[in-house]
Amino acid sequence: MGENDRHQGRPLYEWIVRAARENGLAGATVLRGLEGYGAASRLHTAKILRLSSDLPIVVEIVDSEEKIESFLALIDGVVGEGLATVERVEIHFYRSGKPD
Amino acid sequence: MGENDRHQGRPLYEWIVRAARENGLAGATVLRGLEGYGAASRLHTAKILRLSSDLPIVVEIVDSEEKIESFLALIDGVVGEGLATVERVEIHFYRSGKPD
Amino acid sequence: MGENDRHQGRPLYEWIVRAARENGLAGATVLRGLEGYGAASRLHTAKILRLSSDLPIVVEIVDSEEKIESFLALIDGVVGEGLATVERVEIHFYRSGKPD
Repeated sequence: MGENDRHQGRPLYEWIVRAARENGLAGATVLRGLEGYGAASRLHTAKILRLSSDLPIVVEIVDSEEKIESFLALIDGVVGEGLATVERVEIHFYRSGKPD
Repeated sequence: MGENDRHQGRPLYEWIVRAARENGLAGATVLRGLEGYGAASRLHTAKILRLSSDLPIVVEIVDSEEKIESFLALIDGVVGEGLATVERVEIHFYRSGKPD
Repeated sequence: MGENDRHQGRPLYEWIVRAARENGLAGATVLRGLEGYGAASRLHTAKILRLSSDLPIVVEIVDSEEKIESFLALIDGVVGEGLATVERVEIHFYRSGKPD
């Protein structure tokens, strides 16, 4: 998605991270790209669009296949423009620094 | 690849994104790392090399296996130093904000 | 992991990249997220926590399954809080710009 995409008054990527957390998904990380293009074939470039800063945003979310599929169904109507991919990973460890 | 790698007078990652777009690939995103090392086992670090800023660059491109393989063949001779990996993902949605 | 996590007097992500290099792994890249949450379900946000800058850090490391598993065993005791995932990729090319 784009950095400037918004939903309910906040950046869309923030909304997605909060929704992921509220729905109990195991983790989410937001990465901002330097440039890119996507579904609308617009080219986003840090240098050209520095003022508007409409840069590509990647949100990586990790959980079980079932929870990921449910979450994608939840956000499906909210993402007006974007690409969502799903891939299989093996969780090696998932650990909190706080005592259980 | 490195942030300072160039091809035809522009950053190599910019050249790759434009080539991907011109060849009709579905999407590309450029991410810049804080530090890293790769094929030449040189360590790139933001703090030490801030002036030269030769930081690792990741370009993620999404499309069918056939188009990805063709594109990798196209850029193979252009990337003097780098690592290319291919993995299988499932496209969940791919959507433009503009009316079809 | 978090940007502020430390080990042996340096940022944990730096320690991991150096350990990967010293153990001969083929490549590593550090990416810093804008925001995220993980094992401890704390929300890290660039805007709110700019001073502390405890932002999510992703370290991507590429090598054979055997070397990755060994390396994860090595760092397992060092990462107090974090999520580690492993996935299969195909190496398309891995090339140094320097003459062999």
